Amino acid sequence: MDETWHEHLLRVYYKDTDQMGVVHHGNYVNWFEMGRTEMMQEAGIAYSDIEDLGLLLPVLNLDINYHKSAAYNECVAVYTKIGHYTPIKLQFDYEVRKIDEERFLAQKVSGEGAGKEKEGELLVSGSTLHMWLNKKWKPARIDKTAPDIFERIKREVSNQ
Amino acid sequence: MDETWHEHLLRVYYKDTDQMGVVHHGNYVNWFEMGRTEMMQEAGIAYSDIEDLGLLLPVLNLDINYHKSAAYNECVAVYTKIGHYTPIKLQFDYEVRKIDEERFLAQKVSGEGAGKEKEGELLVSGSTLHMWLNKKWKPARIDKTAPDIFERIKREVSNQ
Amino acid sequence: MDETWHEHLLRVYYKDTDQMGVVHHGNYVNWFEMGRTEMMQEAGIAYSDIEDLGLLLPVLNLDINYHKSAAYNECVAVYTKIGHYTPIKLQFDYEVRKIDEERFLAQKVSGEGAGKEKEGELLVSGSTLHMWLNKKWKPARIDKTAPDIFERIKREVSNQ
Amino acid sequence: MDETWHEHLLRVYYKDTDQMGVVHHGNYVNWFEMGRTEMMQEAGIAYSDIEDLGLLLPVLNLDINYHKSAAYNECVAVYTKIGHYTPIKLQFDYEVRKIDEERFLAQKVSGEGAGKEKEGELLVSGSTLHMWLNKKWKPARIDKTAPDIFERIKREVSNQ
Repeated sequence: MDETWHEHLLRVYYKDTDQMGVVHHGNYVNWFEMGRTEMMQEAGIAYSDIEDLGLLLPVLNLDINYHKSAAYNECVAVYTKIGHYTPIKLQFDYEVRKIDEERFLAQKVSGEGAGKEKEGELLVSGSTLHMWLNKKWKPARIDKTAPDIFERIKREVSNQ
Repeated sequence: MDETWHEHLLRVYYKDTDQMGVVHHGNYVNWFEMGRTEMMQEAGIAYSDIEDLGLLLPVLNLDINYHKSAAYNECVAVYTKIGHYTPIKLQFDYEVRKIDEERFLAQKVSGEGAGKEKEGELLVSGSTLHMWLNKKWKPARIDKTAPDIFERIKREVSNQ
Repeated sequence: MDETWHEHLLRVYYKDTDQMGVVHHGNYVNWFEMGRTEMMQEAGIAYSDIEDLGLLLPVLNLDINYHKSAAYNECVAVYTKIGHYTPIKLQFDYEVRKIDEERFLAQKVSGEGAGKEKEGELLVSGSTLHMWLNKKWKPARIDKTAPDIFERIKREVSNQ
Repeated sequence: MDETWHEHLLRVYYKDTDQMGVVHHGNYVNWFEMGRTEMMQEAGIAYSDIEDLGLLLPVLNLDINYHKSAAYNECVAVYTKIGHYTPIKLQFDYEVRKIDEERFLAQKVSGEGAGKEKEGELLVSGSTLHMWLNKKWKPARIDKTAPDIFERIKREVSNQ
C-alpha cells in the first residue's frame, strides 16, 4: 500500500499575505501546527489530553523548505504524518500543496482527515521535532508515563 | 422568518492562546476576517474579484466586545452578516459563539455556510466598517463602478 | 500644560504588510498592546507584577479607527495614555502616528517613554477597555486588593 | 578579533506567549525577520531599496533549534549575521539570547546595532536561506544586477 497522510484543507486569507503578494513564510509554521493538531485529535491523542496527563510536547527543531509560493484565496492542503518516534521524541513531517477550488469544496464535504494520498502541487515541505516533557520541563518517557498514548502513536504510524 | 447568519467553524489552536490560558484578544480580528471572507466567497463576491475590478475594501473601523473567553481546543462558530450598506460603505457584524464538539463535527459534514441560525454561548461580538476605494485610494461608488457586486450585496442582505 | 503621552517607536516589518502593500489592520491590536505594556512597565505597574498579585486585566472592548495606512519600512510612534479609570475598570487610549526616519533614529537614542507630546501624521486611533479580575475571573476592586497599583494609576494620570 | 553580530533588543509581550506560559515557537520566525531587517537597514541594504531595484529576496529554507524557552516580560537580544553568500543566495544566522533587564535598558540607550559580541543565555539558534529573484520570480545574479548591494554584503561580512 502507498503511504497515506492526514489532510487538512485551508484557504489563504488576506492576513496571510505580505506585500510580495504571496503567503508570508512565517504562516507555514501555523499551518503545520494546524495540521498536526487535527491529525493528533483524529488519532485520539488530543493535545489537551496530553496536558491533562501533566505532559508537554514542545518543539525542539523546526525545518521548512519553500518550493513555490501560494497566493491570496488559493486553496491548500496541509499533509501531516508522523515521521519517526522514540519513547522520548516525536517527529512530524509536513507537505503543503496547492489544490484546485473544485477539489477543495468537494473534499470539504466528503471529509478531510487521515488515510489520504497526497495530491496537488508541492509548495512547502518541512518537519517539526518534539520532545516529551513533564510539568517540570524534564524529559519524560512516554512509553512509561502514558503507555496508552504511546500505543496510539504506534498504531497511527502503522496505518500511515 | 428569523434572521440568518453565515456560519464558519473553527477550532482553537495552541498558537491562539496566551499565558492566561485563553484565546488572546487579538485573534478575534483574524476570525472576523475569516468569517467575512468565507461569507463573501459564498455570496459570489470574492475579494479577489473585487481586486480584479481595481477596487479595495479596507477597514475604517473595528469594534469588538469581549463577553467570555474561549479555551484551547474548544470549538467555535464565527457568525457573520452584512450589518448595513450604502454605495460607498459596507458594515459586517460578527458573533463568535462556543459550540460543543459533537455539533462541530456534525456541522462540518452537513455544511457550514449561509442561512444559519446562531447557536452556542456568546463569546465575542463586533463589527467592521469598510469603504470602497479605487486603486488610487479614493472613495468609489460601488453601485456605479461595479453594479453587479452592489446587486449581490443587496441580495445577500435580503436573504439574511 | 499640554497633555502628554507615552511614546513607543516601531518600524513596519514585512510580516506586518499584506498584499494591499500596507500594514494589515490586525497589527494595530498588537501595537496597542506593545504601547500599553511599555507604558505600564515604565509607570511601575508591569503586567507580570499584576499576575503575581493574583490579578488579571483582560480586554472588555477594543475600538479602532483607521485614518491612513502605513507602508513597509516606515517608522511609527505608538502613543498611549490612560483614558479613564475606576476601581474596577481601566481604559487606555492610543494613537499611531507616522514619523520621519531621522526623528525616529534620534528619538531612539534620546529616549522613548512617558511625558511626550504627540507628533507626526495620524494613522490610527483607538482604545481598549479592561477590567480587573481575580484568579477566579471575578471582578476585583483594585483599590482594595492592590491599593499600591491604584495609586500608581492615579499618579500616572495626574502626570499625563 | 572575535566575530561580531548585529544586536536587536526585544521584550516578550503577552501576545507572544501561549498557555504553556512561554513564547510560542512560531514567534521566533518573526524575531529573525526583525533582526535581519534591522541588520540590513544598518548595513545600507534596506529591503525597500532591494524592491525598488526590482528584486526580491524570498526565503528558501528556515531552520530553528529551540534550546530554552523565554517567558513573558523577559528581555531578549536577537543576534544576526550573514552566514554565507554567493551571487545568487544569502544565508543569515541567528541566535536569540536572554539578557537581564538592567543590561537591556542600558543597551537601549547606548545603542543596539552592529559590531556586538553575543551575551546572555542561548534560547534559540537558527538560519534562513534566501535567493535573489527578479520581478518575474526568476533567479538573479546580484553581482550583475545590483553590484552595489553585493559590495555592501561583502563589506558587512568582512566587518563581522
